[in-house]
Amino acid sequence: MNENYQINTNSMGFYQDLDHLDGMGLSAVSANLYQNKKRDDLVLFYFRKGASFASVYTQSNIKSENIKWNLNNSKEKIHALLVNTRNANAFTGKDGYKSINNIAYLLSDLLTKKQIEDEEEPKKIKIKNLLFASTGTIGEIFPEDKILDSIPHLINKIKYVQNKYIWVKSAMGILTTDTKPKISMEECKIAGTKVKIYGVAKGSGMIYPDMATTLGFVFTDAKIGGNILKKLLKKNIQNTFNAISCDGDTSTNDMVSIFSTGYVNHKELRTVKDAALQEFDKSLNVVLKNLAKSVAADGEGASKFVTIRVEKCKNENDAKKICFSIANSPLVKTAIAGQDPNWGRIIMAIGKAKVKINLKKLNINIGQFKVIENGKISSHYKENDVANYMKSSEIIINVQLGNGNKEFEVYTMDLTKKYIEINADYRS
Amino acid sequence: MNENYQINTNSMGFYQDLDHLDGMGLSAVSANLYQNKKRDDLVLFYFRKGASFASVYTQSNIKSENIKWNLNNSKEKIHALLVNTRNANAFTGKDGYKSINNIAYLLSDLLTKKQIEDEEEPKKIKIKNLLFASTGTIGEIFPEDKILDSIPHLINKIKYVQNKYIWVKSAMGILTTDTKPKISMEECKIAGTKVKIYGVAKGSGMIYPDMATTLGFVFTDAKIGGNILKKLLKKNIQNTFNAISCDGDTSTNDMVSIFSTGYVNHKELRTVKDAALQEFDKSLNVVLKNLAKSVAADGEGASKFVTIRVEKCKNENDAKKICFSIANSPLVKTAIAGQDPNWGRIIMAIGKAKVKINLKKLNINIGQFKVIENGKISSHYKENDVANYMKSSEIIINVQLGNGNKEFEVYTMDLTKKYIEINADYRS
Repeated sequence: MNENYQINTNSMGFYQDLDHLDGMGLSAVSANLYQNKKRDDLVLFYFRKGASFASVYTQSNIKSENIKWNLNNSKEKIHALLVNTRNANAFTGKDGYKSINNIAYLLSDLLTKKQIEDEEEPKKIKIKNLLFASTGTIGEIFPEDKILDSIPHLINKIKYVQNKYIWVKSAMGILTTDTKPKISMEECKIAGTKVKIYGVAKGSGMIYPDMATTLGFVFTDAKIGGNILKKLLKKNIQNTFNAISCDGDTSTNDMVSIFSTGYVNHKELRTVKDAALQEFDKSLNVVLKNLAKSVAADGEGASKFVTIRVEKCKNENDAKKICFSIANSPLVKTAIAGQDPNWGRIIMAIGKAKVKINLKKLNINIGQFKVIENGKISSHYKENDVANYMKSSEIIINVQLGNGNKEFEVYTMDLTKKYIEINADYRS
Repeated sequence: MNENYQINTNSMGFYQDLDHLDGMGLSAVSANLYQNKKRDDLVLFYFRKGASFASVYTQSNIKSENIKWNLNNSKEKIHALLVNTRNANAFTGKDGYKSINNIAYLLSDLLTKKQIEDEEEPKKIKIKNLLFASTGTIGEIFPEDKILDSIPHLINKIKYVQNKYIWVKSAMGILTTDTKPKISMEECKIAGTKVKIYGVAKGSGMIYPDMATTLGFVFTDAKIGGNILKKLLKKNIQNTFNAISCDGDTSTNDMVSIFSTGYVNHKELRTVKDAALQEFDKSLNVVLKNLAKSVAADGEGASKFVTIRVEKCKNENDAKKICFSIANSPLVKTAIAGQDPNWGRIIMAIGKAKVKINLKKLNINIGQFKVIENGKISSHYKENDVANYMKSSEIIINVQLGNGNKEFEVYTMDLTKKYIEINADYRS
């Protein structure tokens, strides 16, 4: 574990201690995938009695081999999610796909043995009960042998009882160039019965030769079927992982999944509309949002965490377009890095978003300061005040179109010289 | 004139000497719009007998006041194009619009007097015979008085006979933070008669408080009507000014126009399909392309000029999407700044372009080097060779999808620490 890392602190204040989650096993080991440093790089999230699940994958038309494998195979209850770092298994072709297949066969064999040893009602674990996530270099030969060699050790180390340390170890084992582990949790009730929602993520490590792969994994001891999980994830991903932007780039390997171990006995849930799910729905959103925010906050070279909120729009799509137009604008992002209240660039980004604007109704606030009111510079605007505010580590930009009541919020970071250093100078 | 500027040189080799163009008058003066330095900031392109014209404007939904004014007024023969720098007249509201109107009235009055003094058949010049371009700060009060005060001097200085010096002076007078004037010319024949096509442009000066405004103005002594010019411009803008990308941002003030003085007697042209126009069509494309390329080459902080060529696509739109996905990717652009042959990032950008890819048919070349062949790393690929090539000041990335015969080409530059310095650190 990174010695510099301190439990329970994180610049965004999102960090929370995770504890035991019934039905899970956790293990993180080093398969020596990093040549120059010894670190955990292979993490197993194991589900003793299986878990219903749902997963969303990258929208890129070039998908990594593990994602293709998941799409072809992982349709039933999941017994294990294996995550490796250092190698993305992307652009590795048939060989990369075959590697996952070989690893899946070994993993299913050894986990079946583990079931026989440890469980009262052991299940035969099939390859279609497995799920794979990879992050790291693309185009390099996938280190199948190193991973195969490490699997017995990985399984041997499975912890059936978790504490905050094994969660942090696991959360760190899936990182690439992130500077901090990303962990979040909520507890809530389903029809009066308490359940846990735990989550870990990794973000925007883009140092050559890595990619900006985002991984997010959420675990609950609630008993929720795959179809309901699918709807919950699809709904809650929209304003969480789909509302962050680091540099507008998209990875071959992005993947966010939710697993339900079903260990808690609560009222049976038949549809996603069941009122008993309301609290869970909200809490899941909080967990996903905290993970997503911590990914944005730890974006490469980030010196400031930026929230773009666009309100009073005709529809959510308009709000979203303007949010991302601002969040992805290098001119806005460099102005924020330069602590410069350059509202002209915000206006430029609003203008190019391809949304109809009635200038006379446009309001822009930076932090608590009114900058533009009804399409004109606010009479309250004092550049010094806003310039002072721009020195904060968290910046909020609020835009109101004034033609409706829909809104959207996006999380991003500033664009700094450090980003260029990380991404341009690493090898030269 | 900037002392460091040397006639007839330019890093891209695009620079050419312009000469006299019949029917034109040129004038560039300082209206003291820049407080701390004396430079030309007001330029008049005057057409003695008027010029038929066509103009395309920014697609941003927030347009500057001069663009709005042009859209409302400038529909007939144009007698003068007035360009000011330092102030974009954007987000200046009714006052900014009124300023243009006041300037238009003075300009039309004084140019009418000039007509009476100088022309055999003087014309009354109306405000609808005028066109305005602005570039610079947005949201600042438009310096109407300074410009009004300078117009008599500006008109007084009109040169009816041009040489390369007055063209360079004019081309420099429209710049903001560009490091070089942008000039291009072609001569060609319309049905055996020689005509000239001259062009000047300004590009991506984005130092606060300026915007990435692109201005391009093309002048010809050919006799071509507005309707034909419109079609020619619309067609030729696609693979020239619409094929450059500096940082994906769009200005409130972008404007590209073509003017035809009609001084050369050649075969009358009735439609854009007239075979006599073929040569002109091609030459216009060369002029626009050279101007556009020089804008990209002079993009802020640029250390390398980058050509992205995507070929063998099902349709041009697919090729264009992939071109811009690569050209706008900060990860690709930082890799190029770092002289790093990071083809993984190119693949990432291809994947996210929302175009169907058959990986097995994908080829990627960097310069003359084959990197990806039929979806696999080329057996000829030697990283050292390509790394060496990446040290060049001009980089060509060639992508072939292998599912058609359509293509597109985009021009951009790398993303350097200097870009961040210019855009983030200028005020702090």
